Amino acid sequence: MLANNETGTIQPVREIANLAHTCGALFHVDAAQAIGKISVDVNTIGADLLTVAGHKFYAPKGIGALYVREGISLSPIMSGAGHERGLRPGTENVPYIAALGTAARLARENLREEPARIQRLREKLHGRLSAAIPGLRLNGHPEDRLPNTLNLSFPKVKGWDLLSATPGIAASTGSACHGGIHAASPVLLAMHLEKSRALGAVRLTLGRFTTESEIDFSANLLITAWRERTS
Amino acid sequence: MLANNETGTIQPVREIANLAHTCGALFHVDAAQAIGKISVDVNTIGADLLTVAGHKFYAPKGIGALYVREGISLSPIMSGAGHERGLRPGTENVPYIAALGTAARLARENLREEPARIQRLREKLHGRLSAAIPGLRLNGHPEDRLPNTLNLSFPKVKGWDLLSATPGIAASTGSACHGGIHAASPVLLAMHLEKSRALGAVRLTLGRFTTESEIDFSANLLITAWRERTS
Repeated sequence: MLANNETGTIQPVREIANLAHTCGALFHVDAAQAIGKISVDVNTIGADLLTVAGHKFYAPKGIGALYVREGISLSPIMSGAGHERGLRPGTENVPYIAALGTAARLARENLREEPARIQRLREKLHGRLSAAIPGLRLNGHPEDRLPNTLNLSFPKVKGWDLLSATPGIAASTGSACHGGIHAASPVLLAMHLEKSRALGAVRLTLGRFTTESEIDFSANLLITAWRERTS
Repeated sequence: MLANNETGTIQPVREIANLAHTCGALFHVDAAQAIGKISVDVNTIGADLLTVAGHKFYAPKGIGALYVREGISLSPIMSGAGHERGLRPGTENVPYIAALGTAARLARENLREEPARIQRLREKLHGRLSAAIPGLRLNGHPEDRLPNTLNLSFPKVKGWDLLSATPGIAASTGSACHGGIHAASPVLLAMHLEKSRALGAVRLTLGRFTTESEIDFSANLLITAWRERTS
């Protein structure tokens, strides 16, 4: 993973690539979470293969891409017709392919200003919550982190209890891929967080269309809900 | 295959299902070509599994469905998150899922009148071509066939030569899944057609939006092109 999907922590992928290559292994990077938030370059990373998911950078859901370094030969996992150089049989979704290309171009153009704007809003949200909630803890790397991700452990509550009290906020306690499960995040446990802290975690993420008033709204909702549940 | 994708011939799937079940095997039917053109009922067919492709019945490209009879347990071919009951990891494309459902409803409603209208236009096209082109041959079953499909062998020409001379017509010499290959169709060869007849084949298909004037336009183009290439 180039950036972790729960904490936003940016992994030392260049070092991992070097290690893999020292052992004669190929290095495949899941960049789904990172694309559009930080600059992603397969050569800088040293990636042999890299995957992106369209809906993470405002392409439609249902399209992604796999970068394959020239000279690498892959075996298909599905057979049938010869689409996509024999790797993935099935009628190509041309409108989505075009959409992915356009979304990638826009993401790159927006890298100039969007991440800084989003990070400023995230810091504002973090600051407001920290000021109101003693014992609030940030999960993930404080600096080497995607600009849009804020994984926080709220003290004395369960993350899902807090979110169920704030239906005006679209957030989750961990990966949406494993949504609906009420358990401590395996990612946070792997980071050796105490279980109570892992259970109090909420993942808040911002995007291209997040506004300053939404930050104030969300901060107010979360602070009110946390106080009601802990007082 | 419920209906062959090149000739439109409707296969005796009920008999195949019975044979499979006699041997203790499950029966999986590819109904991609048939949905929206004839009535498809998993119980009538005796299908244990059945697949459909959305773009064949006016849903967007990039969505399909697999029917699984209750009690059948499948193993996933991809691993990761637990989407779609653990069978297919990946964020679901909810708009496309809704679109597939709506397209299926419309297809069923349109079954009352659309197939008859399309078949009448197909017979007109076939009649006009037959009257003008001596030796024209129909490939596939004359009656047990999808109402929209017309696979014809033109005498004394190659199918792709004829189509390259009629760019106003969107058609192919065989399956679009194998487009761009200039060779006799494996489907027609498996039917024991002579190679010259297989090489002269063109697959013409009609759809919901095909008009009577398009039929006249196409017949005129094909007749003119055939005459120019054989005179």
